[in-house]
Amino acid sequence: MDIPSQGAVYMADIRKIFYPSSIAVVGASENLFKWGSYIFTNIIAGGFGGRVFPVAKNRETIYGHRAYTTVAEIEESVDLVFITTPAVSVMGVLADCVKKGVKNVVMITSGFSETGEEGTRLEDEMIAYCRENGLSVVGPNTMGIVNTAASLYATGSQVRAPRGGISIIAQSGNVGNQIMEWAEQQNIGIGKFVGSGNEGVLGCEDYVEYFGADPDTSVVLMYVEGIDDGRRFMDAARRTSMKKPVIALKAGRTETGGRAAASHTGAMAGSFKTYEAALRQSGIILVKAPTELLTISSAFDSMPLPKGNRVGVVTLGGGWGVITADECEERGLTLPPLPDNVYEKLDRMLPPFWSKGNPVDLVGQPSMELFLESMNSMVSSDAYDAVILLGMVGAGKFVLRIHESAASMGYYSRDKLGELQQLFADHQTNFLDNIIELMEKYDKPIYPVALISTPGEEMIHYRDGSRFKAIIYKTPEEAVFCLEKQYEYYRYTSRRTTGRP
Amino acid sequence: MDIPSQGAVYMADIRKIFYPSSIAVVGASENLFKWGSYIFTNIIAGGFGGRVFPVAKNRETIYGHRAYTTVAEIEESVDLVFITTPAVSVMGVLADCVKKGVKNVVMITSGFSETGEEGTRLEDEMIAYCRENGLSVVGPNTMGIVNTAASLYATGSQVRAPRGGISIIAQSGNVGNQIMEWAEQQNIGIGKFVGSGNEGVLGCEDYVEYFGADPDTSVVLMYVEGIDDGRRFMDAARRTSMKKPVIALKAGRTETGGRAAASHTGAMAGSFKTYEAALRQSGIILVKAPTELLTISSAFDSMPLPKGNRVGVVTLGGGWGVITADECEERGLTLPPLPDNVYEKLDRMLPPFWSKGNPVDLVGQPSMELFLESMNSMVSSDAYDAVILLGMVGAGKFVLRIHESAASMGYYSRDKLGELQQLFADHQTNFLDNIIELMEKYDKPIYPVALISTPGEEMIHYRDGSRFKAIIYKTPEEAVFCLEKQYEYYRYTSRRTTGRP
Repeated sequence: MDIPSQGAVYMADIRKIFYPSSIAVVGASENLFKWGSYIFTNIIAGGFGGRVFPVAKNRETIYGHRAYTTVAEIEESVDLVFITTPAVSVMGVLADCVKKGVKNVVMITSGFSETGEEGTRLEDEMIAYCRENGLSVVGPNTMGIVNTAASLYATGSQVRAPRGGISIIAQSGNVGNQIMEWAEQQNIGIGKFVGSGNEGVLGCEDYVEYFGADPDTSVVLMYVEGIDDGRRFMDAARRTSMKKPVIALKAGRTETGGRAAASHTGAMAGSFKTYEAALRQSGIILVKAPTELLTISSAFDSMPLPKGNRVGVVTLGGGWGVITADECEERGLTLPPLPDNVYEKLDRMLPPFWSKGNPVDLVGQPSMELFLESMNSMVSSDAYDAVILLGMVGAGKFVLRIHESAASMGYYSRDKLGELQQLFADHQTNFLDNIIELMEKYDKPIYPVALISTPGEEMIHYRDGSRFKAIIYKTPEEAVFCLEKQYEYYRYTSRRTTGRP
Repeated sequence: MDIPSQGAVYMADIRKIFYPSSIAVVGASENLFKWGSYIFTNIIAGGFGGRVFPVAKNRETIYGHRAYTTVAEIEESVDLVFITTPAVSVMGVLADCVKKGVKNVVMITSGFSETGEEGTRLEDEMIAYCRENGLSVVGPNTMGIVNTAASLYATGSQVRAPRGGISIIAQSGNVGNQIMEWAEQQNIGIGKFVGSGNEGVLGCEDYVEYFGADPDTSVVLMYVEGIDDGRRFMDAARRTSMKKPVIALKAGRTETGGRAAASHTGAMAGSFKTYEAALRQSGIILVKAPTELLTISSAFDSMPLPKGNRVGVVTLGGGWGVITADECEERGLTLPPLPDNVYEKLDRMLPPFWSKGNPVDLVGQPSMELFLESMNSMVSSDAYDAVILLGMVGAGKFVLRIHESAASMGYYSRDKLGELQQLFADHQTNFLDNIIELMEKYDKPIYPVALISTPGEEMIHYRDGSRFKAIIYKTPEEAVFCLEKQYEYYRYTSRRTTGRP
């Protein structure tokens, strides 16, 4: 008979935390500067479909919802309880939860081990009680959780990223929130989010295991300061990273950072070198900055993996080609010369003084036809594992601006500007659809980099019915960085699968 | 008797290129897909205040301006001639210029040395003729020039960055244009721009000398692939970098990049190690990506220099503090502990479980008063040379969103949202003004990093009558990177001034 491991038990529980049918918020409040209000309003305004019960003393209603004095008093079943009341009240609330048969708790409450000795004593007592009574707890001192698939937005800030496949584990609520904020701004899809807080009961290792098994998660994104159970974490990470990429930022890399981490999450950061080696061996892709976490995760979530390090580059301008070539070599990627068939084809199309090599320089001619032909030749060639396209996206805006200048001088109709704008927008949509088609056909990643990008503009292109998306990069270095990391992950999984180095 | 060096002669000429009273555009055209139209419409629509004469065959007018068949035919004096006609026509146009007494030419025309042997022969002939006749030439194969102080926007793309102190030398037109595009989007002030093209007559060394002497230029920004006259360039750079920072990206750092550069500008890139050492010795601050060029230049243009590497950090959330601490140590900056007087002051104000160290963690309390007090204590302390502020800017939006959620549920008046928004905007303005005042008072840089930034929002704050600006950074790593480079420059100038290492 199989006895489920601790991990397996937690896994079943963790699913229920993210997919509750009914929620109680203890400490719910109409005071807009209290956590009991942050969480309650976010759940309701975020569009959660299940039942939500406010629990508050001496109140008939909270935001028009009938209020209860205790969790135990609620007549219907309760799948998940958020606790926002002070640390001293928590043991009483947990007793209520047990009485009511609640199994899952998100403990927003702070004032535990992060505040010193007395808090640590309280936290230990709380943990012992939860273990004894089979309670799964996120936190304490957590920013909350999100599950976009259930329209469950239950964090302190009212950030609501769109639905997608990137799931986030954050040992810092503010860093996690900022990543979701960027995702919302860029329309990058997020699956689930958990602020792991003090990790009293559930820890990083449990979340990474669960996200590994979660069919709605395609990429796991982590912000980590310290790991309590290193062995279990590495095992879980190793299992997960064979199924999907795990992208992590390990903060507290330096002595100064380690000291700051110790005062923040109480994490004993340990030597980064040791961490780094262990994390890499578990297949985790390491980055250094929070923005990189999202950029890299989004690349994994959107494109096929490169099966080698040979890059083809097509550019509208020479300078970008040089910058891209430098970045590629410095990141272990190569730019092989053009194979004969590609050379001959391009030589027929391009002006006589074209670059005659890789990067293919279209010498400033923003012709969609030329660009499409060059792109097709490069992507379809066996000589390249990935293709970077510099400057075609956004080129329409360049042309549009010249027409705007002429219009301002009275020499081009303002009415026609709208038509032109629509024409370029359609061209760009077709171009990005084309990129997605090519990625599907050849199973290679393609990275378009914008000539001009406008702040607030969509930088990710979705195509109905496709498993891939086209990401518009703002700079070549960002595209090359993603390619490097995707290739690193490809090599890791190949080694694990084939046993070859 | 002093004989002016070649450099000095060019300097006088170069000034006239950027401050012409009258301009002729040879090849002016109403065809919106021709360079003769790009340049002409950009000059007119950009608001240039001087006279502009189109030169075109068989046309009465161009965009309503009386057209001339040749430059020589123009009755009034002409300070600067743009040539956009094909390479084969250039010698004839130059002869016209000489006849008319024109001294300065911007040669947009391509098809010279960048296209092969015949082009090189033509370019050599052109150069010899210009030298003989005392013609100063920008280009050929240049994107054009800009001087915001004269509202002179004369490049191929209609980018119009606001007026400011950062002047740009670009050996790649598209890279230079993209930098101006970013500057326009972020409201970062640009002084002058020159696309140096093939550098037939005037080269990088002339522009760096001129920008060094130009009172309207506070920072010199360069994109370089190769330098012809290394000795003259290094001398000019050394002179300029003692007066103002010179920030450069040297592309073609790698073999792959060098090959791409050779095919682009024909630059013989040479060993990057050699370049790197020489450039650094000349006081040039090197970066690796075009976005970094602008970010770093803007920091130099906006803030006082740090006089040491000791950084104080105030944060609204622990995670950012850890990330910032890591970045600082990795970039050679230190986070000294709090001096007693600062410690005692903060200990009286903050909750008992505050971080008690540097970074000062305000544990998520978005109180402007607390933040201002902490900032003042850190900036005024002799223990710190620079201060990084994490999360106060944008915190109003966090609060606003909670109110929006409540409003969407019918519990907070939508009318009041507008008032609240205005209140937060005012708070933020005061906060940023306060930062500028502190920078003036203590002559130290202060780097606010936003909790939430909205795309397209102003990320630079100007205060009337102040020599400093407040830059709102999107990420801590960006702020730390700027601080590192500003400190590098401070050390360089101190060594040069004091002779000490």
